[in-house]
Amino acid sequence: MGPIRKAEPRVADAPRTLSAPGASEHAPDSVALPDPFRLYRGGMLHGGRIAYETWGQLNAARDNAILLFTGLSPSAHAAATPSDPAPGWWQRMIGPALALDTSRYFVLCVNSIGSCFGSSGPASIDPATGERYRLDFPEVAVEDIARCGFEAARALGITRLDVVMGASLGGSVVAAFAALFPDGARRLVSISGSPAASPFAIALRSVQREAILRDPDWQGGNYPPDRPPRNGMRLARKLGTITYRSATEWRQRFGREPLAGNALRASPFAPRFAVEGYLEAQAERFVRVYDPNCYLYLSRAMDRFDLAEHGGSYPAAFNGNRAERVLVIGVESDLLYPIHEQAALAEAFEASGVPTLFRRLASLEGHDAFLVDIPRFDAEIRAFLA
Amino acid sequence: MGPIRKAEPRVADAPRTLSAPGASEHAPDSVALPDPFRLYRGGMLHGGRIAYETWGQLNAARDNAILLFTGLSPSAHAAATPSDPAPGWWQRMIGPALALDTSRYFVLCVNSIGSCFGSSGPASIDPATGERYRLDFPEVAVEDIARCGFEAARALGITRLDVVMGASLGGSVVAAFAALFPDGARRLVSISGSPAASPFAIALRSVQREAILRDPDWQGGNYPPDRPPRNGMRLARKLGTITYRSATEWRQRFGREPLAGNALRASPFAPRFAVEGYLEAQAERFVRVYDPNCYLYLSRAMDRFDLAEHGGSYPAAFNGNRAERVLVIGVESDLLYPIHEQAALAEAFEASGVPTLFRRLASLEGHDAFLVDIPRFDAEIRAFLA
Repeated sequence: MGPIRKAEPRVADAPRTLSAPGASEHAPDSVALPDPFRLYRGGMLHGGRIAYETWGQLNAARDNAILLFTGLSPSAHAAATPSDPAPGWWQRMIGPALALDTSRYFVLCVNSIGSCFGSSGPASIDPATGERYRLDFPEVAVEDIARCGFEAARALGITRLDVVMGASLGGSVVAAFAALFPDGARRLVSISGSPAASPFAIALRSVQREAILRDPDWQGGNYPPDRPPRNGMRLARKLGTITYRSATEWRQRFGREPLAGNALRASPFAPRFAVEGYLEAQAERFVRVYDPNCYLYLSRAMDRFDLAEHGGSYPAAFNGNRAERVLVIGVESDLLYPIHEQAALAEAFEASGVPTLFRRLASLEGHDAFLVDIPRFDAEIRAFLA
Repeated sequence: MGPIRKAEPRVADAPRTLSAPGASEHAPDSVALPDPFRLYRGGMLHGGRIAYETWGQLNAARDNAILLFTGLSPSAHAAATPSDPAPGWWQRMIGPALALDTSRYFVLCVNSIGSCFGSSGPASIDPATGERYRLDFPEVAVEDIARCGFEAARALGITRLDVVMGASLGGSVVAAFAALFPDGARRLVSISGSPAASPFAIALRSVQREAILRDPDWQGGNYPPDRPPRNGMRLARKLGTITYRSATEWRQRFGREPLAGNALRASPFAPRFAVEGYLEAQAERFVRVYDPNCYLYLSRAMDRFDLAEHGGSYPAAFNGNRAERVLVIGVESDLLYPIHEQAALAEAFEASGVPTLFRRLASLEGHDAFLVDIPRFDAEIRAFLA
């Protein structure tokens, strides 16, 4: 990876949003949001900030930028950087000669507003009080995530993105971006996103939220940072992990293998199968880094997102969009955001006159395939960007 | 429905197992298990009882009996009886001229051992102590449910069943019955069952159990009967309800309809969509009647069941089975027990030489279709029994 050059204005010296407990010790750079910043559902934010990381160099014309939105849980750390060499969540996709080729593109990944990895959210400090916002943070919508990403790009001197891309929640954010900013990007890539949450996805998320809300340690959102509602978060993450993969993959991967090293079971109901150990590891990792109130905020945002709010129908939302090309990717084994939802997104782009490529991938890894089945995603995105 | 005649020995005057809090006030009849009763996983039970209900009359040859096993949560009250006229869980299937024609068959439904509707289980009273068994109840296996059902039939004077039938957990119990009692039934009907739990189903159930185990009100299983771990049970049931249906059905049924009568929301994370209200109603109903320890016992039994324990493979389990005909039914939209599991069961019967009919139903209602899509199930079972 070449040396990183940040576009002006530089914000390295600006005050940084405090990160959530357990977040990376490498606090990312951040940009200031316009102040005040009015949110989509009516709230108002003062002194808001958006954390970001970048890879590659912005060219002189400032027209080689890829804006990348994340799923619900990741930070902006999509790949290693000189200041944070730990592998990122899309490490194998971002770098010189990789699908998001940093010898050619300037890749900018933002931490969603409402999340807890440097951007303003329920776990960050309200500059007006010096305390965490907690539930006083205004309601966050998918549209706000899109807008804050664009604000971060603007703050770095970019007025139009070459590519706006995202997967999972990020795939829906790309749709919101297209609805809000008809001229915001030359190309769009929406992966495993949804134009509106299905009742099935809403049901699953409402159970995840309830697990947190009913954990006595949640304390109405006022838990001490070192004593979050761990049990509720564990359950929420385990359930999420189940819905992010597919039954077929797990049959091949775990079968009915017993859990290793579990010969002496402390409880008659202790985990017994390998798949339970996998869930346990996923939950433990998540509970250490993610803030419960932030989880609740973004989970609700996913439920409430409905592309049809923008003009009355999905195609109407993209009316007048001037993107040159759109790629929509869906995965056939996706249980949470089933492929007909990506098909509906692609149809909406197509119906509004935007040249659209819809790709159905046969990956077994379900909703998480974009994180795992790198060869398939690499090939699709590489071909589209070429 | 004709008058009900019970085969000897009558047990109406025998002491009845106390029912769980909230169970029907109409305590069902019950039979005594052999004493002691050794369970499949090694435990021992003294003074065990199995609750049952019956419809129709046993003929003189005692060869017209249908033994019906239930899913995880229902009682033996599959249809109305003179002493309990409330509709049962398979009301539209059991009666004169219905699929389980009580003018012809003697239908016997048993409450599973380990459950809380009159049979011995963690919530029943240990005659040795006068206290509830709670976690001192021996581990229950799917095989025990099968055997206890057969013991109930024997206690009523039946040595061979005309038909053994069950759905969901009951569908697996039918498979266990066929493995344990090669000559136990002339015909078998296994609906939406599984020869062995998949890692996906295990994962879901382990999250359901964890929701109960981590509820502070569980108290290591020692909760007072009037203060069960309600929050954990609510979460477990909501998650169950999600997996019992299909995303397609819910899209048609609920879409993104808002929850009625919820204009004044007490909390920012209160339920907002109609599907959340449905989950809430299901959970409330369940929490009122089902005992949490019993839930844990039967949930674990479902995880641990593996037909291949009987001889080393699925077909080997049915080696020497002398059933004349078998019907296996699967539902294409079943998320929890996907249809390839019923196909595997049918193949195992077929491979062991038992004439087998495998029916794939296109019902949209997922795992619960047998409770909802009555026309399809009525037609299949009627045709098979004819």
